[in-house]
Amino acid sequence: MNQYCVGIDVGGTTVKCGIFTYNGLLLDKWEVPSRKAENGRYILPDVADELKKHLSEKTIEEEDIAGIGIGVPGPVEPNGYVHICVNLGWEDRWPAKELRELMGGRIPCACGNDANVAALGEMWQGGGRGHENLLMVTLGTGVGGGLIMNGRIVTGAHGAGGEIGHIHVREEEEESCNCGGRGCLEQVASATGIVHEAQRRLSRRKDHSKLRVYGKALSAKDVFDCAKEGDIIARETVECSMRYLGIVLAQVSMIADPEVYVIGGGVSKAGNFLLEMLRKYYEEYTPILKPEQKAEIMLATLGNDAGIYGCARLMLEND
Amino acid sequence: MNQYCVGIDVGGTTVKCGIFTYNGLLLDKWEVPSRKAENGRYILPDVADELKKHLSEKTIEEEDIAGIGIGVPGPVEPNGYVHICVNLGWEDRWPAKELRELMGGRIPCACGNDANVAALGEMWQGGGRGHENLLMVTLGTGVGGGLIMNGRIVTGAHGAGGEIGHIHVREEEEESCNCGGRGCLEQVASATGIVHEAQRRLSRRKDHSKLRVYGKALSAKDVFDCAKEGDIIARETVECSMRYLGIVLAQVSMIADPEVYVIGGGVSKAGNFLLEMLRKYYEEYTPILKPEQKAEIMLATLGNDAGIYGCARLMLEND
Repeated sequence: MNQYCVGIDVGGTTVKCGIFTYNGLLLDKWEVPSRKAENGRYILPDVADELKKHLSEKTIEEEDIAGIGIGVPGPVEPNGYVHICVNLGWEDRWPAKELRELMGGRIPCACGNDANVAALGEMWQGGGRGHENLLMVTLGTGVGGGLIMNGRIVTGAHGAGGEIGHIHVREEEEESCNCGGRGCLEQVASATGIVHEAQRRLSRRKDHSKLRVYGKALSAKDVFDCAKEGDIIARETVECSMRYLGIVLAQVSMIADPEVYVIGGGVSKAGNFLLEMLRKYYEEYTPILKPEQKAEIMLATLGNDAGIYGCARLMLEND
Repeated sequence: MNQYCVGIDVGGTTVKCGIFTYNGLLLDKWEVPSRKAENGRYILPDVADELKKHLSEKTIEEEDIAGIGIGVPGPVEPNGYVHICVNLGWEDRWPAKELRELMGGRIPCACGNDANVAALGEMWQGGGRGHENLLMVTLGTGVGGGLIMNGRIVTGAHGAGGEIGHIHVREEEEESCNCGGRGCLEQVASATGIVHEAQRRLSRRKDHSKLRVYGKALSAKDVFDCAKEGDIIARETVECSMRYLGIVLAQVSMIADPEVYVIGGGVSKAGNFLLEMLRKYYEEYTPILKPEQKAEIMLATLGNDAGIYGCARLMLEND
């Protein structure tokens, strides 16, 4: 009887772990520090040790586990191979195979990219619940994306599926993105991008703005907070960011046409204020879609747990 | 024994019909005029009459036919319902159900959008052969698109899947697209768009250009021909169109990441000249993809038959 599944979301600082029932109830959750010494060779053994303890505490038998899903912060080939994962020091690894052996060789394991599994998690138990076709956008330090169609992650032929952060949107951008391109969505709609955009406006202009008091400590949250209070430069900055994001969601609608967009990541804490602005631009750039054909845009609800939910769901998907 | 399948590509002027073997050999091909009188009510009966004759000539029995696929120039809901099809005068129709009845009620029929079935045709026996993930772009009067993933058409949740012609790409566009938007890909990369773009450049500038001799009769082919001969305004025009198309293909790669792009429609007759220019821009706007991760871009090979191939293949897909 496979009654449980396990999600392991490997991040650069900590590994988030969770044990779930088959229908998505989170039974136990813990974190393991990501030991990055010696090319991160201790990360998976540490995870396995802790997982064995937690399973034993809960008296969960090996044969009751449908599988263990692992999310990693980098590209994962369809066969599970990880060529390189900079944040963990990993190179040339097979995380699922390795964890399977560390756990005794009998529990099925699978591996996916972290943005993609987060999307799967939000589909399963989060903001996208009830929808099998969605794009999750993670607005954090960067802009991540995970596309789900017919309930399954779209990795694409070369692992670039859902990588919307590096879509070219801004023709007049003069600075380079760290991908080597110029005018990427990430340059204007990530937390970093929003701050940078605000600072450029502040340095170019002389008008009063509350943003000036923050100096170099300015955060994306500050920009949204000031925009809510009516600060003009802050408002213009977030309008600019949400306009480009709205244009990209419109593009996604005219390519893959999902039912719903789920917005997560730190920046999404700006909540309905962000959502309403984003909807306005998404609607403006999808004139070809009748009102009833436009996708819904909603907030992610699982926060930092989206990854472990998605990792666990990965095992049900592979059933 | 289902040894044959039939493709019926309904267009505004003629209906193209073909009988295929199961493995894609075109045995018989003919056309029926599209009688649009009385809201196009005679179109399907005409098609059925002719089809019966052709099947009888080839002594193909009903039970040897896997099915009949129908392509229509407009949106088709996943259940086969056609709300409106302007070019045919159709409103509130169920083409597959209707043709099935006209053929005696026992041959399975299915219906799809024409751009989508053309993509399926090119995947089956055309430029995309051997690939299960592709986007076909039809550069004709408009810009059509059909996205295929895992060998199946992506219609999307609202029928907008692959509708790349109405992606917003050009911020500085001042004229409206007929979709109600502004700056759509179709406004600059369709045959009409290319001519319009050339004319705008001609009226804005005074330099000599061979294009001026064509006057109002200027065609997209003329623009490409003059560009090949080195005419500066012609060259700038096609560079501009292919740049925007390249940007859109780059977007598609970072959303759905297909293996290959197949370029068809009248404009694609410009051949390798067009392809090389398009590849240059596609590569420029996908810096995040390593050379081996970039999709191939190739020409469609089935021409006007792509639709009937795809319609026939639709029936195998539904097997």
